Amino acid sequence: MTTFIRNAWYVAAWSGEVARTLFKRRILDQPVVLYRKEDGTPVALIDRCAHKLLPLSMGQLVGDNVQCGYHGLEFDCSGKCVRVPGQAMVPPKAAVRSFPVVERYNAIWIWMGDAALADPQKIHRILRYDEPGWSVIDGRYQRHLADYLNIAENLQDPAHTTFAHRSTIGNPAASEVPVKVEQDGEHVVSWRWTNDAPPPPIDRKIGGFSGMTDRCQFYNYFAPCVARVDVVTMEAGQEHTEENMDRGLRAYSYKFLTPETATTTHFFWLHVRNFGAGDTALEAALIAGLDQTFDEDNAICSALQREQEATGVRQYAFLAIDAGPSRVRRLLEQMAAAEAGTDHQPKETA
Amino acid sequence: MTTFIRNAWYVAAWSGEVARTLFKRRILDQPVVLYRKEDGTPVALIDRCAHKLLPLSMGQLVGDNVQCGYHGLEFDCSGKCVRVPGQAMVPPKAAVRSFPVVERYNAIWIWMGDAALADPQKIHRILRYDEPGWSVIDGRYQRHLADYLNIAENLQDPAHTTFAHRSTIGNPAASEVPVKVEQDGEHVVSWRWTNDAPPPPIDRKIGGFSGMTDRCQFYNYFAPCVARVDVVTMEAGQEHTEENMDRGLRAYSYKFLTPETATTTHFFWLHVRNFGAGDTALEAALIAGLDQTFDEDNAICSALQREQEATGVRQYAFLAIDAGPSRVRRLLEQMAAAEAGTDHQPKETA
Amino acid sequence: MTTFIRNAWYVAAWSGEVARTLFKRRILDQPVVLYRKEDGTPVALIDRCAHKLLPLSMGQLVGDNVQCGYHGLEFDCSGKCVRVPGQAMVPPKAAVRSFPVVERYNAIWIWMGDAALADPQKIHRILRYDEPGWSVIDGRYQRHLADYLNIAENLQDPAHTTFAHRSTIGNPAASEVPVKVEQDGEHVVSWRWTNDAPPPPIDRKIGGFSGMTDRCQFYNYFAPCVARVDVVTMEAGQEHTEENMDRGLRAYSYKFLTPETATTTHFFWLHVRNFGAGDTALEAALIAGLDQTFDEDNAICSALQREQEATGVRQYAFLAIDAGPSRVRRLLEQMAAAEAGTDHQPKETA
Repeated sequence: MTTFIRNAWYVAAWSGEVARTLFKRRILDQPVVLYRKEDGTPVALIDRCAHKLLPLSMGQLVGDNVQCGYHGLEFDCSGKCVRVPGQAMVPPKAAVRSFPVVERYNAIWIWMGDAALADPQKIHRILRYDEPGWSVIDGRYQRHLADYLNIAENLQDPAHTTFAHRSTIGNPAASEVPVKVEQDGEHVVSWRWTNDAPPPPIDRKIGGFSGMTDRCQFYNYFAPCVARVDVVTMEAGQEHTEENMDRGLRAYSYKFLTPETATTTHFFWLHVRNFGAGDTALEAALIAGLDQTFDEDNAICSALQREQEATGVRQYAFLAIDAGPSRVRRLLEQMAAAEAGTDHQPKETA
Repeated sequence: MTTFIRNAWYVAAWSGEVARTLFKRRILDQPVVLYRKEDGTPVALIDRCAHKLLPLSMGQLVGDNVQCGYHGLEFDCSGKCVRVPGQAMVPPKAAVRSFPVVERYNAIWIWMGDAALADPQKIHRILRYDEPGWSVIDGRYQRHLADYLNIAENLQDPAHTTFAHRSTIGNPAASEVPVKVEQDGEHVVSWRWTNDAPPPPIDRKIGGFSGMTDRCQFYNYFAPCVARVDVVTMEAGQEHTEENMDRGLRAYSYKFLTPETATTTHFFWLHVRNFGAGDTALEAALIAGLDQTFDEDNAICSALQREQEATGVRQYAFLAIDAGPSRVRRLLEQMAAAEAGTDHQPKETA
Repeated sequence: MTTFIRNAWYVAAWSGEVARTLFKRRILDQPVVLYRKEDGTPVALIDRCAHKLLPLSMGQLVGDNVQCGYHGLEFDCSGKCVRVPGQAMVPPKAAVRSFPVVERYNAIWIWMGDAALADPQKIHRILRYDEPGWSVIDGRYQRHLADYLNIAENLQDPAHTTFAHRSTIGNPAASEVPVKVEQDGEHVVSWRWTNDAPPPPIDRKIGGFSGMTDRCQFYNYFAPCVARVDVVTMEAGQEHTEENMDRGLRAYSYKFLTPETATTTHFFWLHVRNFGAGDTALEAALIAGLDQTFDEDNAICSALQREQEATGVRQYAFLAIDAGPSRVRRLLEQMAAAEAGTDHQPKETA
């Protein structure tokens, strides 16, 4: 039994990944083919012909339709078969599943569950996106070899940064600072302020801080698939008002988790910041630093995954620092169980 | 349960593959070692020593016998152990299975079933082989990553050529021409004449046709393992007599399917034609074109295989064009089931 | 069910493999991390954090302790957790298993079973080690893709050398000489003298024998994991006294088998000899020859392993030459079964 939650918007791809060709990606263990119509609108279909199961991504586009590369069956954007070469009548069963998709924030969001529930209003809102004074890095993708639950726990886990990210964002001073955890429905947040401490290497480099800093990290998880870390690094000794925080280094680091299979996850990341607009060197360093950081996370989560599979055990001792991660896991498991008990479970068909 | 049919002649290897060395090939999921005796006669034994199971192909030839590379046991061409170094008495149980083999048409044919039924008369007869005016291409081999049933269906499926072989033998004009299917015992044939149509790229190149052509394809399947496509391309407007067909481009395209495992297949092909004798450039182009065509088939069939394994489903909608393929599959399944119910099922022993 | 015997000393690593870093190796299907304390003493812990199972080998050394690379938990050499960053109280359950280790003969020996039984006196005694006039080659390692039982059988099997090691130590003359087998508790020995015969290639090269030789091989197996082949090659015609044997080429060829998994084995070898002291060319040739010989054994044993797994059969015919190998296998199976029936079975926990 997987813990997939189907009734939710997931990032299927960055906008730039999908064009007038057939792009395949496995999502929630379903093969999906993505493409754009002639007017640019994105389309997502199950990547399996309704005849003999050939991946449609092995075929080609014919106008707004997909033509199977085996016998030339054509499917329109709704998945309906509109042509069977050699016979006039199209069998009604010859249809493939289509998935609701919406393009927003330079990404294509997909709804793998009950299409009747696919309300675009439910797509997660990205803070400060397109606001003056704020810069966005997006289009970043990694494939992580771990269950999305392990990754979600890791994203709600401030305590690991000191040790797992020693060379990037790690901060020895932070490791003894306790974290507070709160939950509001499908939102869990763990946070801490580390005050009057030396800044971590990356922040020191970018912010030009010469002395002590106050630094906060808010680890937000919006179930089932969006994580946002809010980070502020500001000179120590000021009041923590919104205005003062905006005058420090302030960033929102987003990760969109899209389960690929029960044990692998598409990891899309996007970063919004209030500093270094147009500074391409800084941006390149930021991208390199964050990619390395998330590679380190992947190394850890994929090792956990292997050990969990080998032992059948997920965790031995439970510690105080597990409050946030455990909260997120429980929430996701509850949501998956609740969904499994409803009529909104889509059937697995072509 | 596999759908192997054991009581039949399969191509084990091309003649040139087997010499005075030990050649191993998995056939019907059995490891087989092939070699030639000093007089050139081919021999096939199970590739597993009767002592500790070492593949005999890791040993060496000693005259007409195979010597195991572990303890030097020697087996003669019948599989009888004739020497155990260090002991005078050879245990009667120390024998390996031998398989009937016959060399014909530059290939070595093997009988994996009940040896008592292995009548060389049952080896498939290749048309126009060694006839004056006809040229043969043989020795071609591909390994296809699909169940032989998927490949057999594909070989009985004229409808796919337009779409799957767009760049080689595909012919858009043909896709709307209906196909007729007939069965006579273990022979299924699907055929169509596509008249007064532009020829496909390869035929245009070879035959020098400037105008419209009549073209027929007869897709013959001789269960369990021989497919023959008869193709004629002739100038449009003539009567379809044997003599007129012989004056056009006429070819017999043979494929010999030998199951390797339940999900992989040895694909041997051989081609007989009445044109371009001695034209090495044409022959090279023909080989390249056919190899590419069969690579395309392999890409499709292996993709189907993966999807079938992932879903447990073989096919969703059934179409008119499936008549021939479905007929072949049903025939093969019936033959396998019939064989399984007889006393001719060989036991699986060393 | 595996046939691991846990209450025994196994070679975990050569001394030179373990330093002030974290060295991982799978032993008896358990992940183990090895390192040295600041005073050089070796330590072995289970390679899995007591918190979230991250391999400790992904962390770092802090003094004599291992710090987990995820949340910084520190474990001392006994496996006790001595620090949890961010909380004062260390949960008593937060401990990892430590394994008794002893450094001897330039190797680190590990006890995977009940620590209360780990008596260093039980470590196998290596003959002539550090004796004047005797030279040692050690530090050699191969990974063999076979169950240690198959390898143990092979090491107790003089009959295979003629055929499996044709190009190295093989000796056609030996293949018809019968072998005697004796057992004394956990020690099995098969031996034979091959008298008045031409020496094998390696011995001829090293010993400079121009004529016939007497040659003995004693294949000793000390269950569960030590094999020692005693080899003497001496001029033919002398009495086989210890003194005369010491005047010939005399060597003890040790192999230490440490099961990695149920189907793979760490193969450590060590060689003691009374000839060619300080002759680096000879030593290099000896190393190359023996490595090649054991590569040949690996090729055979891993092929047997694959065939056994494919067929579910271990052996068909039984021959006189199987007396020694079968004796060793039965002994190991009995020891494993006996251990499984006692209270000394360690529990599999972190």
